[in-house]
Amino acid sequence: MRVDLLIEDVQIYNSYFKRFMRGNAAVLDGRFFYIGPRGADSFEAEEVLQGQGRFMIPGLIDIHLHIESTMVTPETFSYGLIKNGVTTIVPEPHEMANVFGLDGVKEMIKASRGCVADMFYAIPSSVPATSLETTGGAIEIADIDELLRTEPIICLGEIMNYVEVITDPECKTNRILDHIRRHYPHLIIEGHVPKLLDLDLHRILYSGVDSDHTHQSIEGMEARIAAGMFIEIQEKSMTDEVMDYLIRNDISEHFCFVTDDVMTDSLQRRGHLNHIVRKAIGMGMKPELAIYAGTFTPAKRMRMTDRGAIAPGKIADFLLVSDVQELTIDQVFKKGRSVYDSRRPYVQPVSDPAFPPHYYRSVQLSSLAEEDFSVRLGNLEDGRHICRVMLVKNGSTFTEEHHAEMEVRGGVLRWEDSGYGLIATFERYGKGGSRALGLIGGDTIQRGAVATTYSHDNHNLLVVGRNSVDMTIAANMVIGMQGGFCVVEDGKVLARLHLPVGGILTEASLEQTAAEVERLRKAMESLGYNHYNPIMSISTHSLPVSPALKITDYGLIDVNAGKVVPLLVDK
Amino acid sequence: MRVDLLIEDVQIYNSYFKRFMRGNAAVLDGRFFYIGPRGADSFEAEEVLQGQGRFMIPGLIDIHLHIESTMVTPETFSYGLIKNGVTTIVPEPHEMANVFGLDGVKEMIKASRGCVADMFYAIPSSVPATSLETTGGAIEIADIDELLRTEPIICLGEIMNYVEVITDPECKTNRILDHIRRHYPHLIIEGHVPKLLDLDLHRILYSGVDSDHTHQSIEGMEARIAAGMFIEIQEKSMTDEVMDYLIRNDISEHFCFVTDDVMTDSLQRRGHLNHIVRKAIGMGMKPELAIYAGTFTPAKRMRMTDRGAIAPGKIADFLLVSDVQELTIDQVFKKGRSVYDSRRPYVQPVSDPAFPPHYYRSVQLSSLAEEDFSVRLGNLEDGRHICRVMLVKNGSTFTEEHHAEMEVRGGVLRWEDSGYGLIATFERYGKGGSRALGLIGGDTIQRGAVATTYSHDNHNLLVVGRNSVDMTIAANMVIGMQGGFCVVEDGKVLARLHLPVGGILTEASLEQTAAEVERLRKAMESLGYNHYNPIMSISTHSLPVSPALKITDYGLIDVNAGKVVPLLVDK
Repeated sequence: MRVDLLIEDVQIYNSYFKRFMRGNAAVLDGRFFYIGPRGADSFEAEEVLQGQGRFMIPGLIDIHLHIESTMVTPETFSYGLIKNGVTTIVPEPHEMANVFGLDGVKEMIKASRGCVADMFYAIPSSVPATSLETTGGAIEIADIDELLRTEPIICLGEIMNYVEVITDPECKTNRILDHIRRHYPHLIIEGHVPKLLDLDLHRILYSGVDSDHTHQSIEGMEARIAAGMFIEIQEKSMTDEVMDYLIRNDISEHFCFVTDDVMTDSLQRRGHLNHIVRKAIGMGMKPELAIYAGTFTPAKRMRMTDRGAIAPGKIADFLLVSDVQELTIDQVFKKGRSVYDSRRPYVQPVSDPAFPPHYYRSVQLSSLAEEDFSVRLGNLEDGRHICRVMLVKNGSTFTEEHHAEMEVRGGVLRWEDSGYGLIATFERYGKGGSRALGLIGGDTIQRGAVATTYSHDNHNLLVVGRNSVDMTIAANMVIGMQGGFCVVEDGKVLARLHLPVGGILTEASLEQTAAEVERLRKAMESLGYNHYNPIMSISTHSLPVSPALKITDYGLIDVNAGKVVPLLVDK
Repeated sequence: MRVDLLIEDVQIYNSYFKRFMRGNAAVLDGRFFYIGPRGADSFEAEEVLQGQGRFMIPGLIDIHLHIESTMVTPETFSYGLIKNGVTTIVPEPHEMANVFGLDGVKEMIKASRGCVADMFYAIPSSVPATSLETTGGAIEIADIDELLRTEPIICLGEIMNYVEVITDPECKTNRILDHIRRHYPHLIIEGHVPKLLDLDLHRILYSGVDSDHTHQSIEGMEARIAAGMFIEIQEKSMTDEVMDYLIRNDISEHFCFVTDDVMTDSLQRRGHLNHIVRKAIGMGMKPELAIYAGTFTPAKRMRMTDRGAIAPGKIADFLLVSDVQELTIDQVFKKGRSVYDSRRPYVQPVSDPAFPPHYYRSVQLSSLAEEDFSVRLGNLEDGRHICRVMLVKNGSTFTEEHHAEMEVRGGVLRWEDSGYGLIATFERYGKGGSRALGLIGGDTIQRGAVATTYSHDNHNLLVVGRNSVDMTIAANMVIGMQGGFCVVEDGKVLARLHLPVGGILTEASLEQTAAEVERLRKAMESLGYNHYNPIMSISTHSLPVSPALKITDYGLIDVNAGKVVPLLVDK
């Protein structure tokens, strides 16, 4: 019997019994053909690999993530995934959809073709997530139909507007859900339902949404599982008590691990889903269970019946691991072919630009001037007035609404002398050029300025600063390079990151980007940014679904009230 | 909040934690809306039902069965299912396909529309199962394409030709499997792989077949599960050791219960899948696990994500059970509507004929005469000759090949004086009228005759008898009534069963048919038929995939060799 590859003497992970079984594995035409004691006696193999008792586990599968969080293209992302043993992902191109709409989704899918890692796409379901911001694109029901008809779609991505789903039967998301239930009753619908419990939780399930990847509590997780929800555990849910619950209860069918958002330098330094699985093992989860949640249950959730296990007929995506506690990956195989070997150089190939020309010219803004950062309040009388301030909190992407007394003179707010900074956002898609200014304080920069087009979800130009000179320099640098980040102090550029694709992605190599992201982070910290992740912090200041006070081109947003609020409290 | 139905104070089976949880359940538009402590305080219900602490379990789901085994139409079958708590089935109309081909499958599906029980169809994949018989119809690749395009198909039905799949890459079944893998890579493919182990088992899985419902051994079951196969446990697999294995190992995800074939009187007397679940509980399986295997895992296997659990969003198919050990069904609900109540009369409605006119005229045979049962051997010399005899064995549908010395005089075999009976089969589809005669002995009738068109898989006219007079009467009675069974002794009809639809189904009520089947069985037993199930025994004499010596219109079939063999051993 001829086979392509025979791996001899390995501890093969069996997903069905959740344990390792020593034996051999034969691969034919990219799929496992045989697993068991037979070896060279039974098979004439093109290639024989000595396992030397190492562990053989299925390729990792990550079913909830956003490639844009890593600020690289699918090809670079795939390069980063493979060396970390992740062979299949379900990306949701939520950010590209906010910038380019349907076309952005299609271009991401196109850019994923030919990647080593398999990418099956989730349709962004909440673009824009609110009606309180101007985005470059939107995803409507007709777009969903077109994507389902033409592209390798595996699910409807996270329903972010869970509050509207519960409270407003007529909202856009409910219209989408009704449409899906009627026309695609078997389509998987992914959820985002932080803290939801009781009747509201059941309402969401009744609407067809049956997973959650947000931060989990024991009570919430138990209620979700009991009601038939699938839990996707990301790193922030991996508290001691959650891990203990997952370990002690017989619920292995009901959860998997996901990454959601991985920063470039984190991917380079710590890894990807392998880091989560490794961390779970480190926290006391048996490797057999942690691997299950990184391979079998994610495949099952997405009904990928062709992978997630080492068994006859399944696609031969697998890892050879020398230390299973540490998840030390020696080699990675995709469809039976070696795609990574820790003993050999692993170099990212240089590629041509992957996107259409206009994707590199997406920032439709002229240069700004210092007066663009002047807060003019009309004929407001001189004196002290109470203003809203967005207070940044370390440890969270949530902000607080703070009220501060501010000096107004000649109709102009004297923010530069106030001890608070300015936050400004400029619509950048050529859709009217609306803009908004607000005040910022707390654990943010204490001097200089930061500008970026990487600002969720609208990705308009966002500028935070302590003086208008630095803000103008930073903003114009980002406009000039058509997207990215720029950090300025005392008129000098401390760091910048070029994100030419839609103002949110780079085509530079993973190594280079990771180094630049690290420099960017350090530059922001050098300005006094006191946050565990300054890049994520600043890029969520314009995210109007994340509490409590945020800013978009519509103005300051009271997220909990779901409306624009004025800068002046007493106005 | 308005709901249609509120069931208060029930022990609700939770499939995710595999335990009962006391609470209430609300139903809206045929689906569960809420499960938990809330009741009349939160819901304004059209109807409130007092559970009185009874057990509420999901409707049972049977994913492998042949309606034709019960010899009734889908509507009658549905009537029989519902009172037994079976609310969803996956029938494979293998016999109707053998009689009428593609059209038979379509007519069964059509006849299932409007039935209370949901029926999602499996495409018969092995019609005919061999090339050693004449059938009324066949299922080719083009038929499979058409069914997948136009009908509510859920899977490809059991691949019976597993030996050919392994040994002959060019066989029809491998062509079908190649076609499915290429064009419908996600289609579920059901298997029939008795005793298969090791490399052959893995070959079958590699071909895409990943379930088995045949008789299980511990070794076989362990090998199947480890290789990723799903096990469907039917009653004959429920040995003490198999049940013990299922109970003691953490493999609840990997098996379910199925019925496969249920005789009419058995359905009426013992029930259906509820009988299997009840039996499992009686054999020591925890009710929580037995219910899981009768509801959740079958739904999961068939990717019916809308049912199999009592949870928000799932279809409200459920049973109210007063005694969970005995699985005493008080009430059955389909899509939230009461469809059976043990305290109320449950009467089968009378329906019009459901099939096209020619389905009632499917036996294309003229009357037979006594000489049709004369075994003429040409100019064979007078004397004793060694002949093959099909030896019927109690406890099995397998037969043995026996060799007996028989008297030949004037070129005619003197079988009536031999101590053996005659078995004759007549092609009845107007396809040339081929016929075959053989000898039969063992645990079959010792006098009189039995004729039937209910003869797997070809459903040609099969006649077994001890004298040609009774055989002629029985055969002509079956021809005259266009299908069914007839039992004759000493020229008198002892019992008959009219199966007018294709010669294999009746449109009579379940009660009447069950009574007639019971009389038929007793009549056969009165002729000395010493078999635990004479109807099944006789109807498998012409099944050329069931060892060892069988008969079709092609002649005697050596099943293990897969070829026609002559009556005379020394010829």
